[in-house]
Amino acid sequence: MHPITKPTLLLDEDIAHANIKRMSQKAQKHNLTFKPHMKTHQSAHIGDWFKAEGVEAITVSSVTMANYFAENGWSDITIAFPVNLTEIETINDLAEKVRLTLLVNSTFTAQQLQKKLTADVDCYIEIDTGSKRTGIPTEDISTINQLLNVLKGVDKLSWKGFYSHPGHSYNARSMEEIQNIHQTVAWKIKQLRSIVSDSTSSYEVCIGDTPCCSKCTNFDSIDAISPGNFVFYDLMQYQIGSCKVSDIATAVTCPIVDRYPDRNQIAIYGGAIHFSKEVLETINGLKHYGWIAEKENNGWKIMDNDTYLMKLSQEHGIIQCSDTTFDRFAIGDTLMVLPVHSCLTANLLGRYRLLKSQEEIISFS
Amino acid sequence: MHPITKPTLLLDEDIAHANIKRMSQKAQKHNLTFKPHMKTHQSAHIGDWFKAEGVEAITVSSVTMANYFAENGWSDITIAFPVNLTEIETINDLAEKVRLTLLVNSTFTAQQLQKKLTADVDCYIEIDTGSKRTGIPTEDISTINQLLNVLKGVDKLSWKGFYSHPGHSYNARSMEEIQNIHQTVAWKIKQLRSIVSDSTSSYEVCIGDTPCCSKCTNFDSIDAISPGNFVFYDLMQYQIGSCKVSDIATAVTCPIVDRYPDRNQIAIYGGAIHFSKEVLETINGLKHYGWIAEKENNGWKIMDNDTYLMKLSQEHGIIQCSDTTFDRFAIGDTLMVLPVHSCLTANLLGRYRLLKSQEEIISFS
Repeated sequence: MHPITKPTLLLDEDIAHANIKRMSQKAQKHNLTFKPHMKTHQSAHIGDWFKAEGVEAITVSSVTMANYFAENGWSDITIAFPVNLTEIETINDLAEKVRLTLLVNSTFTAQQLQKKLTADVDCYIEIDTGSKRTGIPTEDISTINQLLNVLKGVDKLSWKGFYSHPGHSYNARSMEEIQNIHQTVAWKIKQLRSIVSDSTSSYEVCIGDTPCCSKCTNFDSIDAISPGNFVFYDLMQYQIGSCKVSDIATAVTCPIVDRYPDRNQIAIYGGAIHFSKEVLETINGLKHYGWIAEKENNGWKIMDNDTYLMKLSQEHGIIQCSDTTFDRFAIGDTLMVLPVHSCLTANLLGRYRLLKSQEEIISFS
Repeated sequence: MHPITKPTLLLDEDIAHANIKRMSQKAQKHNLTFKPHMKTHQSAHIGDWFKAEGVEAITVSSVTMANYFAENGWSDITIAFPVNLTEIETINDLAEKVRLTLLVNSTFTAQQLQKKLTADVDCYIEIDTGSKRTGIPTEDISTINQLLNVLKGVDKLSWKGFYSHPGHSYNARSMEEIQNIHQTVAWKIKQLRSIVSDSTSSYEVCIGDTPCCSKCTNFDSIDAISPGNFVFYDLMQYQIGSCKVSDIATAVTCPIVDRYPDRNQIAIYGGAIHFSKEVLETINGLKHYGWIAEKENNGWKIMDNDTYLMKLSQEHGIIQCSDTTFDRFAIGDTLMVLPVHSCLTANLLGRYRLLKSQEEIISFS
């Protein structure tokens, strides 16, 4: 392998494999269909690791991503994003090739699909279980029923059930908070099922957030899960309580370009175009863009709580060091940053260097 | 042109041309060498617009970007980033082809360059005029003199002067604050010049931040300017006071995918992988990721202060609307978002649709 000269995304494939296996086994244990979200890694190569665990259906967040994975051998794809009607041509083309599931959240969209679909597709109604991002609030039974009625009249659309991303679990900061959010989500879904069950034939409910899928065990009212971030995890998930630091599978290696002894700071080649500007606030009120890590056994170890990526401009990163860590960094060497949000970092860097095999693999972005 | 189906970066080339011409004429008027920073647009095509204004030397923020512009006909390139020693091979190759200027900020780096440079390069010492990002503090004369002495012994390195990015001007929120920061920067440079002038032959001082270069008129102690963002400007610059809304040359057109009448919110295809997560806090304490714009004459107009991009996940954007704007947005249509930070948005989208010519051009990223 050529030496590292630019910000480079390292991927510990052993950790990623273990994360995939753990979630896959959990799905099996709870009789859940496992439809992992591919948005985090966006890589056909990593997709194959899921295939090796028996995964047959996947979730993506855009039509472009659906196309990419269809071209790479996946034939059952859910686009977990409200239908983008401007991409109807690509959707029709794709639906000719694979089993495609869309999220249809409004009667307007359903009516447009009646006019514009030329191939058969499945759909979920997205329900909002508390995140207030997209979907019909679970409590809004009349709107859900109204949409269900309209969907019956859309010739090429088969309604398969409900989908929800309980993204508000990202606000949790403890196991107890994750459990509380999940219990409320599960309760809302159970209520919805008890009402909708009378009027319609059997259907499935799929949810997909990494905190609840990682840590909760009650999936009574749920049939499928579609988490994505868990394949890599990151500092945000660690802070939420979804994972241990040793479960984090990616780190960014960055060249050290300058040192400032007066303020215990290090300048690295690694900025907002590598990490994004996702900021994490610790319980102590410290805002940062990543912790600095060192290798330990087969995993990562955070150096200390006083050594972190404190400032980002386009390509510059400034690392605040502690008294004990500053002297360990020399200009011309590299260091490792554990990212706050691995999905955004992976999207920006677009390629991975596998830690064990030293292979380089790319993503589609 | 094909219709817009994904988040698409529109570039009003008339506004960009006017921004380039204005800065170019200002440089001429004040006898400043104009070395525009290419990091904002990262596009050879847009680089040619600068060439048409007589620009001969450019500034970039990475070795990769220097290579790209060298391959596209530029022969005088400053890499405004502390030398990344891990890229020494590429630096040597590049220095064979173009006049290359590096930032050398430490005796350690200078000594390494003495060992490793195989081609002649120029260098600036980066001085920190208050931003506390990189460079030697202007006041630290002994370190500067020590480095100047070491540089004399580096065979292939010719010292050309001082470089500074007064990035703390980004904290300004009024003309008065911009002026105050610039006056302090100019005063610090003047002091430095008066001290260093005795010991060394003539040299130049280059500074490059968009707020001061856009709004200030006293460049007595300065020989060259290298601003970058001004080519597009953005909401951050508008809030700082560097530009008018009608000077902002880019907007992102996004498909509308869902509507939430209960909370006056719109969901768009357009998320953190398109806008980055650069957040702007208004003087009223509102945090947002962009204002929503509509066309007006030949420029943009912000719809109103209550219509803004309030939440971003990977591909979803949620727009908070006012009572009057909500009904103007329909699923399947598109809307325009003025980005908070055009550099990061341009880097993420990687291509431009020119508004007047309808041509599509790409950047190197």
